[in-house]
Amino acid sequence: MQRYGLTGKFTAQPGRRDELLRLLLEGADVMNAPAGCLLYLISTSPAEVDAIWVTEIWDSKKAHDASLSIPGVREIIQRAMPLIAGMSDRVELTPVGGIGLPDA
Amino acid sequence: MQRYGLTGKFTAQPGRRDELLRLLLEGADVMNAPAGCLLYLISTSPAEVDAIWVTEIWDSKKAHDASLSIPGVREIIQRAMPLIAGMSDRVELTPVGGIGLPDA
Repeated sequence: MQRYGLTGKFTAQPGRRDELLRLLLEGADVMNAPAGCLLYLISTSPAEVDAIWVTEIWDSKKAHDASLSIPGVREIIQRAMPLIAGMSDRVELTPVGGIGLPDA
Repeated sequence: MQRYGLTGKFTAQPGRRDELLRLLLEGADVMNAPAGCLLYLISTSPAEVDAIWVTEIWDSKKAHDASLSIPGVREIIQRAMPLIAGMSDRVELTPVGGIGLPDA
């Protein structure tokens, strides 16, 4: 099966990045390494104080889509919405290889 | 120590993406999971046929910088240059958490 990835940027409302960051980390805990999740990387950037970058790699697009229905995830999304000024730089990825993921 | 990440896009010369992809994968093999490399993710994107996205996470910026001196890496960079039309979307990342990397 073809692995599936997504990367993109959340821009927090001014001064609220760390609150949003805590919610995203809480979301990763709620998901608790669900079946098919190979990577869910949450990063800030020195270049842009309100930005949070998220890169996800899944065993399949189906596994990614299913994650959106995990109990608790929707609730976290609703709590996060007021903290988010924008979402951008969204790119779908087809992982090919490299270092750090389990072999396909 | 603060972990360090980098993400960005290579745009291949028209029709030469797969050649560039093979060189980047070869580069990952040459590096052979060097000390301090937690992730070196090479992806294509369905949205842009000539694009290759690379996301790297290292134990430190120092570990990343040292990787550029690994024997063979410079030679691969030189072979890759004629295949590259552009590099863009470069963002430095400060990994905070999530799923799929070893605990800090």
